[in-house]
Amino acid sequence: MPKTPVLTPRAQDFPRWYQDLINKAELADNGPVRGTMIIRPYAYGLWERMQSEMDARIKAVGAENAYFPLFIPQSYLTREADHVEGFAPELAVVTHGGGKELDEPVVVRPTSETIVNASFSKWVQSYRDLPLLINQWANVVRWELRPRVFLRTTEFLWQEGHTAHATREDARDFAARVHREVYADFMTGVLGIDVLLGRKTPRERFAGAINTLTLEGMMGDGKALQLGTSHELGTNFAQAFDTRYLAADGRQEYVWQTSWGTTTRMIGGLIMVHGDDDGLRVPPRLAAVQAVVVAIKGDEAVAEVRRIADRLRAAGVRVRVDDRTDTPFGRRAVDWELKGVPVRIEVGPRDLAAGTAVLARRIPGGKESVRIDDLPALLPGILEEDQATLLRQSREHRESRTADVTTVADAIEAATSGGWARIPWSVLGQEGEATLAEQAVSVRCLLAEDGSVPTEDDAPGNVAVVARAY
Amino acid sequence: MPKTPVLTPRAQDFPRWYQDLINKAELADNGPVRGTMIIRPYAYGLWERMQSEMDARIKAVGAENAYFPLFIPQSYLTREADHVEGFAPELAVVTHGGGKELDEPVVVRPTSETIVNASFSKWVQSYRDLPLLINQWANVVRWELRPRVFLRTTEFLWQEGHTAHATREDARDFAARVHREVYADFMTGVLGIDVLLGRKTPRERFAGAINTLTLEGMMGDGKALQLGTSHELGTNFAQAFDTRYLAADGRQEYVWQTSWGTTTRMIGGLIMVHGDDDGLRVPPRLAAVQAVVVAIKGDEAVAEVRRIADRLRAAGVRVRVDDRTDTPFGRRAVDWELKGVPVRIEVGPRDLAAGTAVLARRIPGGKESVRIDDLPALLPGILEEDQATLLRQSREHRESRTADVTTVADAIEAATSGGWARIPWSVLGQEGEATLAEQAVSVRCLLAEDGSVPTEDDAPGNVAVVARAY
Repeated sequence: MPKTPVLTPRAQDFPRWYQDLINKAELADNGPVRGTMIIRPYAYGLWERMQSEMDARIKAVGAENAYFPLFIPQSYLTREADHVEGFAPELAVVTHGGGKELDEPVVVRPTSETIVNASFSKWVQSYRDLPLLINQWANVVRWELRPRVFLRTTEFLWQEGHTAHATREDARDFAARVHREVYADFMTGVLGIDVLLGRKTPRERFAGAINTLTLEGMMGDGKALQLGTSHELGTNFAQAFDTRYLAADGRQEYVWQTSWGTTTRMIGGLIMVHGDDDGLRVPPRLAAVQAVVVAIKGDEAVAEVRRIADRLRAAGVRVRVDDRTDTPFGRRAVDWELKGVPVRIEVGPRDLAAGTAVLARRIPGGKESVRIDDLPALLPGILEEDQATLLRQSREHRESRTADVTTVADAIEAATSGGWARIPWSVLGQEGEATLAEQAVSVRCLLAEDGSVPTEDDAPGNVAVVARAY
Repeated sequence: MPKTPVLTPRAQDFPRWYQDLINKAELADNGPVRGTMIIRPYAYGLWERMQSEMDARIKAVGAENAYFPLFIPQSYLTREADHVEGFAPELAVVTHGGGKELDEPVVVRPTSETIVNASFSKWVQSYRDLPLLINQWANVVRWELRPRVFLRTTEFLWQEGHTAHATREDARDFAARVHREVYADFMTGVLGIDVLLGRKTPRERFAGAINTLTLEGMMGDGKALQLGTSHELGTNFAQAFDTRYLAADGRQEYVWQTSWGTTTRMIGGLIMVHGDDDGLRVPPRLAAVQAVVVAIKGDEAVAEVRRIADRLRAAGVRVRVDDRTDTPFGRRAVDWELKGVPVRIEVGPRDLAAGTAVLARRIPGGKESVRIDDLPALLPGILEEDQATLLRQSREHRESRTADVTTVADAIEAATSGGWARIPWSVLGQEGEATLAEQAVSVRCLLAEDGSVPTEDDAPGNVAVVARAY
């Protein structure tokens, strides 16, 4: 008897599958104000793990956390011309506070370059104060007309790094270091997403940046998702906020800056890369729950799963016990599949007698009976294997759906039929890029001939990766 | 030669000392929008440690983290009459989003009971869904007319717990459990503040609560600071949002709720309890940096402090290296005193030859020469001793400045001359409380006769603790 599908199958309607999964796995709800979201505990647990893994990497490159205000005077935004042009249409504006109309409206931060620079201009005096490396974990607001949970929301959570350096080279190197050592290392190593590291074209750059580095992932439907960006800001904000330092030679110089961010959108990316028709599949290194130990029924099974959980915890596995024996087992199994816990260990009455348990693996699929005593030695290896499987599948999926093309028409064809195209940037150019835009196709990034991150837009051999994107 | 004081002495001008310390120790700046603050890295490091210690305790009582939107429809606030009355004067209101005037203005959350209940009313179906135990770490906004950094700011960071229970007793017990096992355990055990645990009078209750439990600390100037509260909300919000559950007997019942919060104001409390005329003193269990190892000058000293730091880390001590030998040693020593790092280990040229270092202790004060090889064994004990010293000093300070009185006039006298008064609640009563208010004195909490937390406002033997408060 075929199972009734729990979710709309991906092949049938990908966007509806995505929304079904978010509802059924209890990841998030829409908030009452359009475009806002409620991140439910299981999804917030994913975010907490993302935060702790990212935060360790951010601290390892030398940045310290701080906190800047949510409210920014409207006049700050207007000081950097490109910046205000980019963000003005998305702003939420507070006009009343404490029962009175405000003299100057304040903007709810869409990003913090301006207010951070107002502080940096006070904190930075001499070259001894550089580099200044700051990060913050915060919420930001960008009014969204076509919101989609996790991917485009009016409010989202993120980290935003802001740094100041003595030279253009230092800033460039630091932006590249974050791109590689923080973001790529986390996304490939923990999220199990085989991201492409590239450079944005001028058209796709952050508003106010002189260079934007990006990490692009291919989703299950072949569309692209930008998973993080690291910007060189040049001296644009330093000039707008007069952030200068006394150089060793006694001259006053503007600082060179970077900013870089990743957001709760990564949760959406995780779903769309690793999810299947049964639900989410969480990479073990990310999972707050790597293994759930399920008592099928009876007090003895409950006692046994608790013992198993303790032994697995001692082996370094993150475990949850499911002892809700008053809820039908089938419903609980479906729920853990939906939530994508990598390993499910089921203990029923027959297992107790035999000293065995059923080991169900979410990532490769399949079930087998194993000796309970073998579990602590078995699990760490299984989890590492599953982690590697997800990364490999993500790479193979992208490679199988990426076409090398030599004309703009072929690039559009590839991108509008569920894949990516690679086309020489010398063939495409800014004119071709404008043609793509008419079909809602964009250049996700430029790659150098050898696949590395180009140091210039127009270096010979640069390849544009072209796709539809979320 | 007497030292020139780095800070305005506490005895001379306590509020100015507080502000001096915050500036000189680089803890926080005022933000450009009135009442907002920039939390600088060292102070944010304190907050991160507060978060991690609190978060572990919050999870230990069974609550899970989630995230609710910053923006709340204005109409939600008005559903609970006392709640809107309490918060209306402090609201920040967004009237424009995405370049347009909004149909319904949205409020920037001052607290989340309303928006949480809108979700709880969907999530809670039957008694099996209870208790529902949720916490969130977030920013909130309450427009402040007389802001003071950390203590009263227009925006602050906090955690807010929200729970739903089947019965009044369950809710009451959970609010009390958070009060004791999360808040009191953290404040006495980590912050080293000997807080009083009591019950608020009806006048001082949270807007919308049927009972508020509080933790009150005595600051260095004898004033009180409310460091955290845990509320029983009864069914007030459940009725306003129709949050009901199907009971085992088949009836629809309203849930009984709690909410509880602590904020970045705890950083202000920490300063005002443990700070002295040389700066902050950070309790070792809270400190992100428990010991700083300072190279006085020379490359050999730098190499030695790095070796010492590694050995201390191996002994479980949180260490920072200060190898800034191009900055005068005296300036660095003053800076570490200001920042209140519990232990400073100084290594100069003479020490290198002798295999010794100077151990400077911030909490009891004093310096001594010790063998470098002895440091790893020595430090953990020193840090625990310092932790206990701070707690003891905080208790002794409160006890020495608390008077037992029997008249309202004497209570006012005690509270307006830099201390607290204990007065029988049967003597004071709500009328006496109103008289106190005319002198800006308030009942900080009620205690039962034996010093425990009263279960009723008017239990015989209840004592009111009366003070001026921040």
